[in-house]
Amino acid sequence: MIANPYYTSEFHGDYDVVPIGRLDLEEGGSIPDCRLSVATFGTLNEAKDNAILIPTWFSGTHQVWRDVYIGPDHALNPDEYFIVVVDQIGSGLSTSPHNADGPNSGIAMSKFPRVRIGDDVVAQERLLREHFGIERLALVVGGSMGAQQTYEWAVRFPDKVRRAAPIAGTAQNTPHDFLFAQTLVDTITADPGFAGGEYSSNAEVLAGLTRHAHLWAVMGFSTEFWKQEVWRALDFDSKEAFLAGFLEPYFTAMDPNDLLTQAWKWQRGDVARHTGGDLAAALGRITAKTFVMPIDEDMFFPVRDTAAEAALVPGAELRVVNDVLGHLGLFGVAPTYMPQIDQHLQDLLAIPA
Amino acid sequence: MIANPYYTSEFHGDYDVVPIGRLDLEEGGSIPDCRLSVATFGTLNEAKDNAILIPTWFSGTHQVWRDVYIGPDHALNPDEYFIVVVDQIGSGLSTSPHNADGPNSGIAMSKFPRVRIGDDVVAQERLLREHFGIERLALVVGGSMGAQQTYEWAVRFPDKVRRAAPIAGTAQNTPHDFLFAQTLVDTITADPGFAGGEYSSNAEVLAGLTRHAHLWAVMGFSTEFWKQEVWRALDFDSKEAFLAGFLEPYFTAMDPNDLLTQAWKWQRGDVARHTGGDLAAALGRITAKTFVMPIDEDMFFPVRDTAAEAALVPGAELRVVNDVLGHLGLFGVAPTYMPQIDQHLQDLLAIPA
Repeated sequence: MIANPYYTSEFHGDYDVVPIGRLDLEEGGSIPDCRLSVATFGTLNEAKDNAILIPTWFSGTHQVWRDVYIGPDHALNPDEYFIVVVDQIGSGLSTSPHNADGPNSGIAMSKFPRVRIGDDVVAQERLLREHFGIERLALVVGGSMGAQQTYEWAVRFPDKVRRAAPIAGTAQNTPHDFLFAQTLVDTITADPGFAGGEYSSNAEVLAGLTRHAHLWAVMGFSTEFWKQEVWRALDFDSKEAFLAGFLEPYFTAMDPNDLLTQAWKWQRGDVARHTGGDLAAALGRITAKTFVMPIDEDMFFPVRDTAAEAALVPGAELRVVNDVLGHLGLFGVAPTYMPQIDQHLQDLLAIPA
Repeated sequence: MIANPYYTSEFHGDYDVVPIGRLDLEEGGSIPDCRLSVATFGTLNEAKDNAILIPTWFSGTHQVWRDVYIGPDHALNPDEYFIVVVDQIGSGLSTSPHNADGPNSGIAMSKFPRVRIGDDVVAQERLLREHFGIERLALVVGGSMGAQQTYEWAVRFPDKVRRAAPIAGTAQNTPHDFLFAQTLVDTITADPGFAGGEYSSNAEVLAGLTRHAHLWAVMGFSTEFWKQEVWRALDFDSKEAFLAGFLEPYFTAMDPNDLLTQAWKWQRGDVARHTGGDLAAALGRITAKTFVMPIDEDMFFPVRDTAAEAALVPGAELRVVNDVLGHLGLFGVAPTYMPQIDQHLQDLLAIPA
């Protein structure tokens, strides 16, 4: 393992790292000592029926959910619900290439096995059941890769998910998304400092991680975000200053192998793996009351892709979120964003399920 | 200069290389012996009022116009018009970093000066006037960077342009486009084989040019192109085969410095340079009858950006072209593409001007 100060409580506040034992993986191989980083908010009631699960997105952690989405003024209200945010495998906080040590030292860095969305969901289900005694969830909600995991939960464990809210993501990754994620991967692996995954510090991959950040500038925000210079509202003087002060430090702090583990998973997210490739059959299994919540200006999870999936989920509603930021509207920067999210989630939580 | 077989008649058919003398550049410096590659179709009439000018797009040449857009069955009919396609400076056929020799040897490769859209247009005007005796154009039409040059013509030389048809491009480059083009640039310059622009063969920059092609896969086509697997209509079996058989060979044959010269120019295209930054004032100068022709699925020249400009051009019409291919619909691959282009250009050419 290598030390990376970004993946610590200093940057991420309080969280627990819970060992769930050996995790055998869909692609073969296993994580001998799988540990999941978990942040909880609120109290589990006696009936254990007020739990909400939030799986995380690419490069994101529980941090943004805690700071932006969860609170007494939000639908995700810890006064009412027991909210469990689980950082995904490869997030840098849960078991990941850069922090694999002890029993996991054989899978450190470039030797880390391929992990699928389904592996995360199986790990989360075990965590909830064995560690918290939770058998059913009032809601699973997540954005982007968190939406992939939300769909996977609803398809794989239909009896355990009462409501589902995939935000800005799909049940079956699109080919365009696959290609976009591949360009993200290539910015990292093309950096000579990556050294086949055996760098000794993420700083050695600074150039690749910086180019990685620049691709997010092109696809993560919308054309209108740049045209309207929305970054001025974030107190930057130029788009270059915004890149240098926001996206670049965000991504260059991260671990390259960790990002690659997540990207590989993102590229291959597909609930139709449960039904021999039949997406309609897979989504038809969902019994959760589902709100499909794309962001209107999202350039790589466009509304039409998510609407096509919503049409295959029994009883699902399409709830489009308007945000000029596009996909990275997920950060909740626009003042108009969270009121929409809260309204939709309130409506969803109000539906008996 | 270095030899590159792609930039020859073997690949590009017949064209003339016409010397226009020394070209002083907007950014300072000059091209001592500027040579423009020109392909003509049809005959200039005695009144010299049947000339159509076509400037070229990033990475493209007269070839695609000859093969797809020009012919007796098209609006761009050589039986009626004298059609002049001028390959842009840096295209690899006109004076470019890789072919600078003789009097231009001082500006070869990494020493090539910065060229602007306006420099191309000034060079083209000189070529038309001095070489062909053409003082007025029946039409200027171009796609993408060709649209940038079309707008530049209409703003800079309003008396010389009777009609203008910018396809899939803008008069003022958007910040999003700037950032996208920068990621294209960075794929090349990040390749150690680029060697600061002093490679001895484009083959040494194969990895960078390949990543360059992959970015075009993400932004050049539309999300629907990939989702609908439109590449199957081009006789490929997988998206990977399409990349390997189409986009990769297309870009890896090209010269890295030449592409960078074009990209720098693209990034900074802006007719408002003529009016102290006032875009409305610049576009207000246009007297040409103008059809603004975006492609509906274009991911980096979206319709709304082009519509906003069309609203500033006196009497302009917005004519949206429908093509699931997105920006690279410009290749004219979809059978439904050219009929639309022909209809719009026929309508435009039928308007007295």
